[in-house]
Amino acid sequence: MTGSFPRPGADPFTERTPRVVAARKLTRRAERDKTGRFLAEGANAVEAALAGGSVHELFVTERAAAQHADLVDAARAAGVGVSPITDRAADGLSETVTPQGIVAVCALLDRPLEAVVTPGARLVVVLVDVADPGNAGTVIRVADAAGADAVVLAGDTVDPHNGKCVRAAAGSLFHLPIARVRDVPAALAACSAAGLRTFAAHGYADVELDRVDLTEPTAWVFGNEAHGLPADVLDRTDLAVRIPLYGKAESLNLATAAAVCVYTSAMAAHR
Amino acid sequence: MTGSFPRPGADPFTERTPRVVAARKLTRRAERDKTGRFLAEGANAVEAALAGGSVHELFVTERAAAQHADLVDAARAAGVGVSPITDRAADGLSETVTPQGIVAVCALLDRPLEAVVTPGARLVVVLVDVADPGNAGTVIRVADAAGADAVVLAGDTVDPHNGKCVRAAAGSLFHLPIARVRDVPAALAACSAAGLRTFAAHGYADVELDRVDLTEPTAWVFGNEAHGLPADVLDRTDLAVRIPLYGKAESLNLATAAAVCVYTSAMAAHR
Repeated sequence: MTGSFPRPGADPFTERTPRVVAARKLTRRAERDKTGRFLAEGANAVEAALAGGSVHELFVTERAAAQHADLVDAARAAGVGVSPITDRAADGLSETVTPQGIVAVCALLDRPLEAVVTPGARLVVVLVDVADPGNAGTVIRVADAAGADAVVLAGDTVDPHNGKCVRAAAGSLFHLPIARVRDVPAALAACSAAGLRTFAAHGYADVELDRVDLTEPTAWVFGNEAHGLPADVLDRTDLAVRIPLYGKAESLNLATAAAVCVYTSAMAAHR
Repeated sequence: MTGSFPRPGADPFTERTPRVVAARKLTRRAERDKTGRFLAEGANAVEAALAGGSVHELFVTERAAAQHADLVDAARAAGVGVSPITDRAADGLSETVTPQGIVAVCALLDRPLEAVVTPGARLVVVLVDVADPGNAGTVIRVADAAGADAVVLAGDTVDPHNGKCVRAAAGSLFHLPIARVRDVPAALAACSAAGLRTFAAHGYADVELDRVDLTEPTAWVFGNEAHGLPADVLDRTDLAVRIPLYGKAESLNLATAAAVCVYTSAMAAHR
């Protein structure tokens, strides 16, 4: 038991404690949408969540509390309730293979499209029908690293508050504005209205990435892992762009393709 | 049963058939090293393996045979034995969450360092102590797409013939020369001897990626997911290079960082 651990001597919450049971339900999207809360697991995510001020409650195992005493202290300093939990309770709150033992209950992060894509934005990432939460999280991390102004999760794209997405984003979910919008044309129209050119990443495009002027404000649009972007979305973007393939590979996966496109833009804009 | 399926009417091999039992052992590294064989699962990998001429035997479920009749035909045309297997046998041969039902037994692909890193190479990727097979496979795919001349898996890096690596590489394992070498200094020395400058990707480097001349022949060196590159490896490279972080993210993950570095090099060299 470390000095930072809450209520020394108190029994930790188990997987049957009502507050843990309630939190566990947040691993389901329907429950997240109903309650307006989600789980942020792991030290990176919890640190970013505390900095962002959106934490309702923090659950920690004894081991995680010892390892991340700074985060436990920061939570208490911010007036956030810190509850000790058993390892088994931590397993139940985890959507990843290796539970971290530190999980924050947070307010959902997404904001309305018009609050997220605003005039003056120079780099925006739009995901259309992206299915894998790990991919979505990785792209959100890339967008953050590249200094993007916003990420828009459009169409049938996975919920960014999914535990695997939170984990893959490694805190970035809390670093830049995020919108969820069903209506893909509305997402593209918002980018155009904000003065961004919309570039569709597309394996069969005529124009190659290294031939495009990337110094102007740009919204990059990426499609589903298996099917790419639908034709009507391609029609609504300003330009379809292809990553040049210099070897024998037929394509890149979504996350690496997004990293190449978004970073090529970011470095061109900062040159 | 399609026209392409082998031996119509023959009972498929089960998970207890000796040849399937023998093949299943290839999911273990020790058995792969002992026999000189590995399993390539999925249509992408099997297609690339057949094109590379390294297939000893092909196992297919009835459903996969119907779906990939072209591959079954190509295998038979190449004189490769095609054996029908049950779904359960296919599960046992799979190291991934979603078995594909088509698995080739192949000859190991790695070649000696000196046969892989040769004078005239313009882009080489060196992985040092990379632990996750999915990451290694993704980087091999990126290296292939970027037209790299070779990939070197150095130090304690995962076996590229691991099923998860084969899957993530999506065929690229068969597209470019691969070496495995314990001795990291030897790998770096081979790159230098081949006329390549060695660039270490390092989060705390002074030099940023967009300030480096990438038009000369380059070997990119990437380290372990959690620990990066050890100090003695950094000391032995020509230059440590950092990806500029324009937002609040503290880093990129290995695969996306490698994609950014390797593609920035490839596009600079082709400009």
